[in-house]
Amino acid sequence: MQGQLDKMLKELGHQNAYFPLFIPKSYLSRESNHVEGFAKECAVVTHYKLKSNESKNGVIVDPDSKLEEELIIRPTSETIIWNTYRKWIQSYRDLPILINQWANVVRWEMRTRLFLRTAEFLWQEGHTAHATKGEAIEETVKIINLYTDFVEDYMALPVIKGLKTPSERFGGAEETYSIEALMQDGKALQTGTSHFLGQNFAKAFDVKFSDKDGRQNYVWATSWGVSTRLIGGLIMAHSDDNGLVLPPKLAPIQVVIVPIFKNDVELNAISNKIVPIINSLKACNISVKFDNSDKQSPGWKFNEYELKGVPVRITVGNRDIQNGTCELFRRDEMSKKSIPFEIVVDTILNLLKDIQDNIHEKARKYRDNHTTLADNFEEFKEILNNKKGFVSAHWDGTAETENEIKSLTKATIRCIPLENEKEEGQCIFTKKKSTQRVLFARAY
Amino acid sequence: MQGQLDKMLKELGHQNAYFPLFIPKSYLSRESNHVEGFAKECAVVTHYKLKSNESKNGVIVDPDSKLEEELIIRPTSETIIWNTYRKWIQSYRDLPILINQWANVVRWEMRTRLFLRTAEFLWQEGHTAHATKGEAIEETVKIINLYTDFVEDYMALPVIKGLKTPSERFGGAEETYSIEALMQDGKALQTGTSHFLGQNFAKAFDVKFSDKDGRQNYVWATSWGVSTRLIGGLIMAHSDDNGLVLPPKLAPIQVVIVPIFKNDVELNAISNKIVPIINSLKACNISVKFDNSDKQSPGWKFNEYELKGVPVRITVGNRDIQNGTCELFRRDEMSKKSIPFEIVVDTILNLLKDIQDNIHEKARKYRDNHTTLADNFEEFKEILNNKKGFVSAHWDGTAETENEIKSLTKATIRCIPLENEKEEGQCIFTKKKSTQRVLFARAY
Repeated sequence: MQGQLDKMLKELGHQNAYFPLFIPKSYLSRESNHVEGFAKECAVVTHYKLKSNESKNGVIVDPDSKLEEELIIRPTSETIIWNTYRKWIQSYRDLPILINQWANVVRWEMRTRLFLRTAEFLWQEGHTAHATKGEAIEETVKIINLYTDFVEDYMALPVIKGLKTPSERFGGAEETYSIEALMQDGKALQTGTSHFLGQNFAKAFDVKFSDKDGRQNYVWATSWGVSTRLIGGLIMAHSDDNGLVLPPKLAPIQVVIVPIFKNDVELNAISNKIVPIINSLKACNISVKFDNSDKQSPGWKFNEYELKGVPVRITVGNRDIQNGTCELFRRDEMSKKSIPFEIVVDTILNLLKDIQDNIHEKARKYRDNHTTLADNFEEFKEILNNKKGFVSAHWDGTAETENEIKSLTKATIRCIPLENEKEEGQCIFTKKKSTQRVLFARAY
Repeated sequence: MQGQLDKMLKELGHQNAYFPLFIPKSYLSRESNHVEGFAKECAVVTHYKLKSNESKNGVIVDPDSKLEEELIIRPTSETIIWNTYRKWIQSYRDLPILINQWANVVRWEMRTRLFLRTAEFLWQEGHTAHATKGEAIEETVKIINLYTDFVEDYMALPVIKGLKTPSERFGGAEETYSIEALMQDGKALQTGTSHFLGQNFAKAFDVKFSDKDGRQNYVWATSWGVSTRLIGGLIMAHSDDNGLVLPPKLAPIQVVIVPIFKNDVELNAISNKIVPIINSLKACNISVKFDNSDKQSPGWKFNEYELKGVPVRITVGNRDIQNGTCELFRRDEMSKKSIPFEIVVDTILNLLKDIQDNIHEKARKYRDNHTTLADNFEEFKEILNNKKGFVSAHWDGTAETENEIKSLTKATIRCIPLENEKEEGQCIFTKKKSTQRVLFARAY
């Protein structure tokens, strides 16, 4: 996933860079909405040394090593990056800056959830600087489209693209675009966000440039990210009771070959038949694992690779060699068939495409079947409690109503879909006039 | 560099994983040599929240958010990984475990040096677990060989492979292998280390496995790493007064094309000629940048790409189009020549190989010319002060002598070379008997 995203970002002209883990505490407070968004979840480094505690046979923090200014472990890097951009940007010639960082960040969480909400997580964060508002908005949209392409085409997971409401925006953003996916339990997952930051960080960190006519202007900014949360999304969207179901385009092992043998003679006979097939698959850029270990039984291996979601398994035994066939198993449907060795490579190439399409289509159908219109609050609650999924409903556009609905139902506005038809209607809660539906759901 | 190393590690069967940034303080003290090695340079997280300081218009650390057990930011991950391996390893069937992690680590440094010694740095750290001592030692050696191949073949930097003396070993290791390179100022740079950890961490974290006969044994371990320090080495080894000189195999841009044009008509004529050449180069996996921006002058671009070490530059102007030629510039020798368009692609393919070999050979010659035998302490000091570089000399094998030499000359034993001929001799300092020379140098 990281490799593919990195490639796609570079194709749009972004360069990777790396900024420090530690942010001086004072930087964080320079943009007021930003500090409000993150101050309550910051891990703080206060000392830099341990010394041995001889009475307790352990180590204690050395009080003499207290830092003059405490350091925050980055919850996101806008502040330290814009403090640096000030030194990099003087003229329109220095713009745009299109930088991406692969990094760990820390947001202290009391209630964690594996892959979805962890105190430390891995992500990429893009931070771009532009000469004009239009160019910055264009970049924001370009990236949300890139995320959409990645999540749909590689993760086989359909998403709804939209704008966040003001109360769900990133701290310091003027507009937040997000993509929202639906998990198999009917809960929504925000899978990526792209923020148009206006000139907020440029003003907070005094980053100006002179344009072609020599006039001084504040720089326009965007930031955007996807995280290890996508791994959680991948797991929850496609898995079944037998374990992971991985889309072939992202599976680290696409084909596993399990030989069934009693001794080295039988294994050799199988290897002789299988090695040329492995080489042909590898030549087609298919990643193959030939698990000829004798530490585990074939049955154990079957379970293990099903659990790990390997899309295709080939099983070959002594009798198969005599028959000139092998057994082909597809993980998504848990079904198998026998095929002649001659057509193994072609069959697998087609099968991998078919599995990718099949799980994408399955997720799309689930999402479509669980996106429901609600025209009054009773209907709205009924859907959330029973059918679950996305609820498309009219909203009066106020934060007050949004909060009220949230506290009564635990549903939030996931986004105002970009591809929304205008439609006259009444807010499901206040019955005030509304011109379009927004997408509600309970979410991770 | 990261991409190539990752590929080489995976080819040897290693898998990437990710462990937490935070290590509970108590873990660190479980291996006594380990805690001794790292306690004095640990950043410590003590709190997890800020609150606004209304009187000062800023933020302060919230005293109520003090952690029950303070967290260390990993200086290296043996302790947290072996605490996890205890849960993963029961049987010989679970071994070997061959895991690599790409991560940031923090070792608090008072005197930092860009790329070479920074409080935070990026690295890969491998952590493997084995059933036998022999297998663990084999892994340790395999990795130091892999590092050697990478540094020599890709970074074009020759190294000396050897063992560290006991006082220079990693905290918790039974044996440390290192590779040592020489920079252009005559100082040595340790470029990679691979540690045989014996059963020290298995014992500290109680990691046992049952072998085929059901007997319980402690697991054998290795760890190894290279870091962003390699970037510093790459810069220092090859650069000149005009900036970076990058080995073509690692250059992010291998060929830059700078068009010289007065208007769009001229640029179009150049583009028509150049685009097919770019496509041919890309088809050969050469990374090419066509810098047709009109924001900067050709002269500015020449300097910029020389500074950034792009191995090959093509310049094309209006007259070149008429003549059917272009100008080819090689960064390593700062020389240029005119060649016909027809042979550009072939010429560049050969030139890139030639540049890679040329800078490798230059570094090798420098290293060989700066590796000197010394047979007494006067000679030893004279070489260190004037000629500089590696000094190959007899040593009596004691930590006392090693420390004495270090405090008198600032030279340390870089390694006991693996490919060392046995030779009877006298310690340069104590005149005691010695059976082999070791490699001294002043080092970064």
